[in-house]
Amino acid sequence: MKACGLIVEYNPFHNGHLYHIQKAKEISQADCIIAVMSGAFLQRGEPAIIDKFHRTKAALASGVDIVLELPYLYAVQSSDYFAYGAVNTLNEIGVESICFGSESGSITNLIASYKHYKGKESVYKEKLKQYLDEGMSFPDASQLAYRAIGLTDTAIDLKKPNNILGFSYIKAIMDNHLSIEPLTVERIQSNFHDKDITTSIASATSIRKKLFETDAILEQVKQTMPNETVRQLQRYKETAGLWHTWENYFPFLHYRVMTMSSKELQKIAGVDEGLENRLKKTAKDITTFKDWMHAIKTKRYTWTRLQRMFVHLLTNTKKSDLALIKQPSSVPYIRLLGLTQTGQTYLNKRKKDIAVPIVHKLGKDISLMLKIDERASDAYYSILTPTLRYKYRQQERHGPIRLL
Amino acid sequence: MKACGLIVEYNPFHNGHLYHIQKAKEISQADCIIAVMSGAFLQRGEPAIIDKFHRTKAALASGVDIVLELPYLYAVQSSDYFAYGAVNTLNEIGVESICFGSESGSITNLIASYKHYKGKESVYKEKLKQYLDEGMSFPDASQLAYRAIGLTDTAIDLKKPNNILGFSYIKAIMDNHLSIEPLTVERIQSNFHDKDITTSIASATSIRKKLFETDAILEQVKQTMPNETVRQLQRYKETAGLWHTWENYFPFLHYRVMTMSSKELQKIAGVDEGLENRLKKTAKDITTFKDWMHAIKTKRYTWTRLQRMFVHLLTNTKKSDLALIKQPSSVPYIRLLGLTQTGQTYLNKRKKDIAVPIVHKLGKDISLMLKIDERASDAYYSILTPTLRYKYRQQERHGPIRLL
Repeated sequence: MKACGLIVEYNPFHNGHLYHIQKAKEISQADCIIAVMSGAFLQRGEPAIIDKFHRTKAALASGVDIVLELPYLYAVQSSDYFAYGAVNTLNEIGVESICFGSESGSITNLIASYKHYKGKESVYKEKLKQYLDEGMSFPDASQLAYRAIGLTDTAIDLKKPNNILGFSYIKAIMDNHLSIEPLTVERIQSNFHDKDITTSIASATSIRKKLFETDAILEQVKQTMPNETVRQLQRYKETAGLWHTWENYFPFLHYRVMTMSSKELQKIAGVDEGLENRLKKTAKDITTFKDWMHAIKTKRYTWTRLQRMFVHLLTNTKKSDLALIKQPSSVPYIRLLGLTQTGQTYLNKRKKDIAVPIVHKLGKDISLMLKIDERASDAYYSILTPTLRYKYRQQERHGPIRLL
Repeated sequence: MKACGLIVEYNPFHNGHLYHIQKAKEISQADCIIAVMSGAFLQRGEPAIIDKFHRTKAALASGVDIVLELPYLYAVQSSDYFAYGAVNTLNEIGVESICFGSESGSITNLIASYKHYKGKESVYKEKLKQYLDEGMSFPDASQLAYRAIGLTDTAIDLKKPNNILGFSYIKAIMDNHLSIEPLTVERIQSNFHDKDITTSIASATSIRKKLFETDAILEQVKQTMPNETVRQLQRYKETAGLWHTWENYFPFLHYRVMTMSSKELQKIAGVDEGLENRLKKTAKDITTFKDWMHAIKTKRYTWTRLQRMFVHLLTNTKKSDLALIKQPSSVPYIRLLGLTQTGQTYLNKRKKDIAVPIVHKLGKDISLMLKIDERASDAYYSILTPTLRYKYRQQERHGPIRLL
């Protein structure tokens, strides 16, 4: 029984994701599709629009056989850590291949780029450091460093977000000599930041934008997603009363910063280079999350980096917690969020070969990393009513979602 | 110009307080009444029903000439620390006397009790330690220790809450050899825990109880308080949308505990003897503040002690912060919340004799203790909308309230 791994956020699950799954099955010839998905908070430093269990249901209904949770510490990270955690999780569960979407669409070119990079890695790193020291932002510095080793002149445009991620996946596979075949599918709609929705395929970003424009907008984006996503979005809104956005978290974030000292703030992951003072200072006059971001933002920090810092603040994630992922080592567990009958069959056949514990529900004291996932999940639900917090937390203590 | 000091919470200001002021003027023959008042959080570990500025307005309208804020670290403390901070603040501003309400009503008996106690202080402390070590709660242990030195058999019943406080005020004056004359007024309604309101005099506890029973209940307790209190209560409710109770803070408190480790909880003032584990454990199944209190409560901890712990948690007050008050030393500043023309005249005449800085508004970096007051105030307002938080915080940066 062959498995193909996907690395996803499904925020929310849409027709582009459906196409990705179908293509992945076709190219990989796999019998089982395994997705490793971010949990409560996403790579770009945002809360997921609906919780991981509702997103899992949508995924299982559309062709994914097993949904695993990417540990928080890897999920809210720059692409290299994110990729390492995701690829490593898929490796532990035994996939033969990983299939990702990219703007390039050519695995040959991506691998060639990686090999070119690998031969000049030390030059790249030296240049990167130099540009950062000159005060350049990371994306700019990184782009120039790639150019310095002749990489941006190859067939791969490493400014495109999915090419960057794809490059990181290949790095994670090859640097660690994993026996996983990388595969890629060209993204139908390559413009990631597209805001207009005209066809049945739209980016998650543009779908979320529409969803947050007005309340009754679900109707307008229905054509871009499977029915099960529409159902899960509807159900969540009806029960929880909201879809999660940063603004919902403002009261908690602000409360936290107002009652923390600069010294305490300094311990939080991402609060670097005097940001603790900027946070304290700006907090005094701020009434929305957006204004806060603008008040803190300078050329030095990317929007994403600051958002990640806010996620760490909200979840009370310390610099010392990050030590858990700074050295490449195997993920300490596999968190199972949901599975189909096919997924169950796969697990039954393979479980004797899986070296790390498979976590079906929270409660046992398995790993500090898992405790941090739980803390992130609790922070995520904090904006709901006390009763709903309790109810949704309980899901973590039941088994995974089964679509049998 | 003579000044008499009062130690108050005004939660809210009622006719009993008015009587207290009139009696204090009469007995002390003072020209100026100076009240030192708890700010956002009160001695028994509760949020004040309305904020300190609205309570200050009510007090100034009813005969108080100067309102000072008792620093948070003293305000949310057992009676000895509370009394020390309050008496010391009044001493710094130069009052000739302090007048407090008590069930006893006899200053001669209270002073006699203090002197009796003083002669047997070491026996009392030894007994107290012994009873505490036997697992007794503090109030029980203290009562038995007093009995052991023959104190509860004197004219003063040291189980009555205002006698206890009065005893502490006298201790603070005499132990520190302050030249302040202690005076007392017998409380009209001596039953502190009375819940029925039949006359124009009722306890603050019973008034609050009525106020929280239903929304439109202000009418029913109107006869127990001056018009200005009614006005301030009304105005606060109209603007802020609520009167503060513990339940309002549940989401923030719960969020905080869910995202803190036991090790971090252990650093919080009042989180002693394994309470950090009890907090973490009970938090999982709890949806109201009241249920949480009941889930944590054991014979070992008084209700008040646990509530104080929750205040410290909410305000992020550490055990290390308490070091600031553990050694008797002068208060580092006097925080001026409001004054009348008489109060202004008094300050003009006396200010050259006042050794510590008088703080008119926040902003300057005067003392860690003042920073903690500000943090407490921020935590207090955290349950309001972001715009109101901002508005109310701004009051702290304006000068004191002037009723001229």
